[in-house]
This record gives sequence, C-alpha cells and structure tokens, in this order.
Amino acid sequence: MDLVCPRCGSAWPLASGVWRCSCGSPLDLRLTPVLDPGAIRQGPRNLWRYAGALPPVEPRYRVSLGEVLTPLVPADWGGRPVLFKVDYLFPTGSYKDRGTGVMVSALRAAGVAEVVEDSSGNAGASLAAYCARAGIRCTVYVPAAASPAKLIQIQAYGARVVRVPGPRAEATRAAQKAAATRFYASHNWNPLFLHGMKTLAFEIWEQLGWQAPGAVVFPCGFGSLLLGCYLGFQDLRRAGAISRLPRLYPVQAAACAPLYRAWVRREAGEGRSPAPELGPELAPTGEEGATDAGPTLAEGIAAAQPVRLPQMLAAVAESGGAVLAVTEAEIRAGLEALSARGFYVEPTSAVVAAGLDRLEAAGLLDRDGPVVAVLTGSGLKATDTLLRLGVSPAEPGAEPPGPGQPAGPANPGPAGERQ
Amino acid sequence: MDLVCPRCGSAWPLASGVWRCSCGSPLDLRLTPVLDPGAIRQGPRNLWRYAGALPPVEPRYRVSLGEVLTPLVPADWGGRPVLFKVDYLFPTGSYKDRGTGVMVSALRAAGVAEVVEDSSGNAGASLAAYCARAGIRCTVYVPAAASPAKLIQIQAYGARVVRVPGPRAEATRAAQKAAATRFYASHNWNPLFLHGMKTLAFEIWEQLGWQAPGAVVFPCGFGSLLLGCYLGFQDLRRAGAISRLPRLYPVQAAACAPLYRAWVRREAGEGRSPAPELGPELAPTGEEGATDAGPTLAEGIAAAQPVRLPQMLAAVAESGGAVLAVTEAEIRAGLEALSARGFYVEPTSAVVAAGLDRLEAAGLLDRDGPVVAVLTGSGLKATDTLLRLGVSPAEPGAEPPGPGQPAGPANPGPAGERQ
Repeated sequence: MDLVCPRCGSAWPLASGVWRCSCGSPLDLRLTPVLDPGAIRQGPRNLWRYAGALPPVEPRYRVSLGEVLTPLVPADWGGRPVLFKVDYLFPTGSYKDRGTGVMVSALRAAGVAEVVEDSSGNAGASLAAYCARAGIRCTVYVPAAASPAKLIQIQAYGARVVRVPGPRAEATRAAQKAAATRFYASHNWNPLFLHGMKTLAFEIWEQLGWQAPGAVVFPCGFGSLLLGCYLGFQDLRRAGAISRLPRLYPVQAAACAPLYRAWVRREAGEGRSPAPELGPELAPTGEEGATDAGPTLAEGIAAAQPVRLPQMLAAVAESGGAVLAVTEAEIRAGLEALSARGFYVEPTSAVVAAGLDRLEAAGLLDRDGPVVAVLTGSGLKATDTLLRLGVSPAEPGAEPPGPGQPAGPANPGPAGERQ
Repeated sequence: MDLVCPRCGSAWPLASGVWRCSCGSPLDLRLTPVLDPGAIRQGPRNLWRYAGALPPVEPRYRVSLGEVLTPLVPADWGGRPVLFKVDYLFPTGSYKDRGTGVMVSALRAAGVAEVVEDSSGNAGASLAAYCARAGIRCTVYVPAAASPAKLIQIQAYGARVVRVPGPRAEATRAAQKAAATRFYASHNWNPLFLHGMKTLAFEIWEQLGWQAPGAVVFPCGFGSLLLGCYLGFQDLRRAGAISRLPRLYPVQAAACAPLYRAWVRREAGEGRSPAPELGPELAPTGEEGATDAGPTLAEGIAAAQPVRLPQMLAAVAESGGAVLAVTEAEIRAGLEALSARGFYVEPTSAVVAAGLDRLEAAGLLDRDGPVVAVLTGSGLKATDTLLRLGVSPAEPGAEPPGPGQPAGPANPGPAGERQ
C-alpha cells in the first residue's frame, strides 16, 4: 500500500514510515472502491462491512474492540425531523475509533511495532486502545497542562504518556521529532485514518436504505470527519450508488475558527457573502493566514492550523454546503438541548445542535431530504467540564404532561430508532 | 399487562402503580415467549428484535435512544478463549439500558406520567435518559453523600435529584414513600426491568449462531443481570431453542457478598462444599441473614439486601453454576488486565476478570463450550476512582515485540469481532 502526494505525485510505501511528502504536503491514499449493497449486507456488522472501499487489510490482521454500526436516532428539532448519528457508541467513547480501527489494522498488517502520536483527547485514547489490542507499543505526547482526567484513559490502555511543556503545538513537534525513528500514527496526517472515517458515510447511506441524506452536520477541527465523509460520499457517487453528494455543514467554535474564516474569505473572493445566520462576524486576526485559538468548550475541535485546509474548503464547496461557526453561549445551550432529548455528549459535539439552529434560522435545514447530525463524543468523557457548567436541560425532550395527564398515549411518536 | 405475585398469586394491573404485593413479595410478570430465529432476523437491530418474548408494547410507544446488539469480542484469557460481551456500549454507558428501555416503553404505553427511583449510579442515569426521551417526569432519590460526578449525568437529562441524608437504604425508603403517589420505576422491584434484561440472553444466543454458551460470568448485586439472564435462557429452553441452560456464574465483591454467603450456606446445608477457589472464606456476620456492606471498588454491586435473593439462589443452582466472590486486590488486578486488552470498564465490571481467574483456578472455565463474560459499565463513568487507583495495565494485551520485530504478521489472531 503506497501513500501518494497529491501535490507532486511522489509515492511512499506505508511501511517506510514517511508521514509527509518531501515537498511538505500531506499524503493521500489511492483506492478503487467497490460498494455493492448485496455484498455489504452479507458482511460483518462492523467497519469491515465496507472493506471493498477501505484500505486493503487481510481479515487476520484486522483489529477490533467491538465496533458497531452506530444508531441513527430521529428527534424533533424545532418542529423539523433530524436524524442523530450516535457516534459516541464506539469502544473508546468517540467516533475516532472509525479512523483508528482501520489505521491500526493496516499498520499491524504492515508489521509496524511501535507508534507515536500527539493528542490529549479522543484520538490519543482511541489509538492507545487499538494498540493495546494489536500488541503495538504506543507513545502519546500531550501538553504538560492536560488534566489527569483526560489522560487516565490513555494510560489505562498501557500507552506511554509524555508530557511536553508549552502549548499544544509543542506536543505535535515532539511527536514529529520522535517520528524520525518510530511510526507517526497521526490522526491528522495519516490518510489511513481519513479512509477509516469514510465508514460514517457508508453507514448513513446503508441506514437510509442505500440513499444519500440531504445534509450532514458535524463538529470540525482538523477535518478528519469532514474529509472522511467527503471521501466516502465521493466513493459512493463514483460507484454510481448515489447521484449527488449531501451538503456538508462542518461547524466550528467561533473562538477557534480557521476553516470558517477561510470560507468567508473564499466566498467574498468569489463575490458571494455567506448567509449571516451561519456564523457571527469575527474580529480579524493579525495577518493573513494567522488564526485565533481562543479557549472554547469545544476542546476537541480547537485546531488552529488544520493541515489539510485547502482540501477541506474544496470539499465543502463541492458539496453545496457551508461552514458554520457558533459562540460559546450557543454551545452551552446546544449541550442542554441535546441532554434534554436523552443525548449525553461532550461539549464539542454540542456545536452540532447550535449549527442546526443556525441552519434553521437561515432556512437551510431541511431542503433536500433527511438531515443527519453527528454526535461524536460521549458526555462521560467530560465530567469535569459538565460539572463546571452545571448542565441542566433548558427544555425537556417532550412537553411534560400535567399531573394525571398520561404521558404515554398522549405522546407517541418520535421515540423509535431508524435502522 | 398484570404483575403477578409468585407467593400468593395476587395480580395487579401495571397502571395501578403497585410495586410490591400486599403479602410483601416482589411481583413477577407472566409472558408466553415466542422466539423464532426467522422472525428475529427480520426485526430491528435493537432490543425490540426480541419483542416476541418481551412485555408487549406497541411500536409507537417504544422508547429508544439508539440501543445496539452489543459486540461479542474474543480475547485470550490465560491461554483460553473468552468472549467479552461489551455491554457498556449502550446509550448511557451501562447495560442497565436493556431493562430501562423496555420498562420505560411499557410505562409510556400504560400512560404513566411521572416516576420515582432510588439510585446514585447507572440505574438512575439510565432511567433519567429514557424518561427524557419519553417525556416522563423523573425524580431520583440519592444518598446525600453521593459525589457530584455520579449525579451530573442524571441531572443533565433533566431528572430531579433529591439528596437523602443517611446510608443508601434511606434513599430507598424515601423513594418508596414517594411511590404512594408516583410510579416506583425501580430496577430492583419492577419485573419489567428484569424482562428487559432477558435481551442479553437472546443476543448471546443469536450471536453464537442460535446456540447457548457453556457459561456466562457477570457482576452481581441486586441480581437483575442474573435473573434477566436466567429468565431469557429459560424462555429459550421452553421454546425448544436450546436444550440446557448455560452455567450462570455471578461474581460478587467479597466486601459485600450476601448472595455468596447464602450460596455457601445453601451448599453446606445440602452436604456440599463449593470449590475453595471460587471465593475467599468470609468472617461470619452478626446474625443469620444479616450481611456485610463494606466499602468496595465494585460500587455498582454493593447491595446488602437483594430483594429477590431466593430466586437468585435457585437460578444459579438450576443452571449448574456457582456464586463467586473476589477481593479488592483481585478487582484491581482485573481492571488492569481488562484495560491492557483494550476494555476500559468501571471497577464493578472488573469483578468479571477476577471471576474468570477463579473459575480457571478451579478448573471450571472452559468445560461446556464458549464462555461469555459480561462487561457492564464504561470506565468513562468512573474517572475519579480510576484516577485514585492510578490504573495502569499489568500485562499488555499481546506481548510487545522487540525493536525491529514486526508486531503485525508475527501476531495475527484473536483481534476480530464475532458477529
């Protein structure tokens, strides 16, 4: 399996350990996807159900901790139906297991014995878990300031944790330095991770009866979910399984919104102005290309410099979607709105609720068929933050009936699960 | 739907709100189960897949937050294969959603508008979540000493939390007092909850190719998992779908082991002595029937007075199994052994790992076919405790290869998922 540079065309064997082209570009993977509903129906009910479109890994090397096809749960959102993709029901409590499961399987097949990564959150925990299962040694570089509560899961799986003084970027630099002698299993740089994320698109397609949704709304930081979704739906379109891409709506926290800023600039450059409902007007940053990185409740998407920004912009544009940005107050309100419906998520996932509200305000929520909103991480991962916020729902999932008034028969409806 | 007293035969309509027979006995439910693999295969991939053997609830009243058929993941245990049932992959992070999902659906159909419960842990969170989804008002009585970290999930779903001074039993008394005017949706008393737990048995049967396993090993406190499993496999045997029950091995913490004590007494009374490997010798408690309730890492099963103790004993005996007890040191070691294999569980679930070791030591682990070990709660629920313990794996999931030695090809094997 070769990694290929989209800029200069150079190819590098996976086992070489090269994680960035000598020209500086992130690397891609070229696959010829096969997506046949008949074959998929016969497959296992995990990521490898879509093996025909994933990096090729012989079954005996595949690493599984019990991934499932995550549920698609309908709920009412201000009078409109939204399908919530409950992607926190993965073994480590986050959607990252899609990318990690596929990446670690391919690394195991390639004989990789030891990996490094930089993350103090979901990606680090996910990598540590799959490496434990695969028998691959794993070292995770984290900012020295990361809270013990965020690290305990990584450590429990047996990964070595190295604390790096300074800001988050220093942990990245330390991991990249270590990558001179050990494999850099980066969820941001390694394209195997992105190709694992494609399973999200394939599952939605299958769960909707082999149809694309009208739109997908999801949190966006480094862009693995955006690019994974884009690659997956692109595979489906190329295979003739769907006729058009769903509109992709990545949501950023306004406090750290490089993609949103770039999107607004891009639209302005083409003589358009995005609907004002889709995000607040942000104060300009110091210089062109510089981005803010303010503190945000949505820690999981606080990515000041996504390495694949141009690809991300192109994917949103091609899909007919838009980039959204939401404020801290909206994230908090989103968290409460989701909890009240029975979805207990980490604050990062709550940007999706805020994004749905913005799409609704802009009249864009429901125009091309089903809207899928992706809930990426479990609230159980953020107990400290939720305690600090004192989360309690602003509105109940359904109007509570008065005393003596039956909740049941008066209130049937949207509580089933779509399969 | 009527609740029936197994002792005196009285019947009480579900909607009456009666939670205990006037004779004092817990109530049961009489169903005529239908379990047809052909029909099951066509059903939805959630709890209602087995609707033919569950309390009857019309589809429009069923409440779902996205339950899945939880994975059965094989792993090596001291050279023997064990299938881990990853039951923490439920919406609220614990297996309790099986019982709650079915119970709340039936309550919704019966027009129940408001419920009370006593729990500071998984059952409270599960009930709060399903009530939020169903539009049922929910009040949870908790010991005043319960940590905020345990309560935040319950509160986030919008349940009212009432702190009751004194030991855990005072919270129970307060809930039972409130039950004079509101429905007592107790995971310990309400038989709907037990019948929801039957889905665990049905899933295992389906995932093993419509066969019973040789044994099931699981944590045991109030016994909902034990009795649910027993009822489920009993349904299957009555339907002719299996020829014998699997051996049931409930595991208790030695620090709070009323079922284990009763089992040892029962065996002695019948002239047998349980294998000494199955549990430590415990100091006698003060009087006959009194039980200890020492502090234990396995908080979720610290039940000093299970209300269905005689039923629990009979179920274990009929299955040909035994009751196990494990020490705090064994629980801690079990936690580390599971983490090292990529299973991040709360300490309560770790009694299962300790139980597997004891069964192996007694030569009972693997004598009648596949052994299923149930992992009931996510480690993400116990961040505080895990931080306090400083959990780190004692042994890796697979021997890490030396430098330059490929982990992959040298080490294929048990990393797949059984479907």
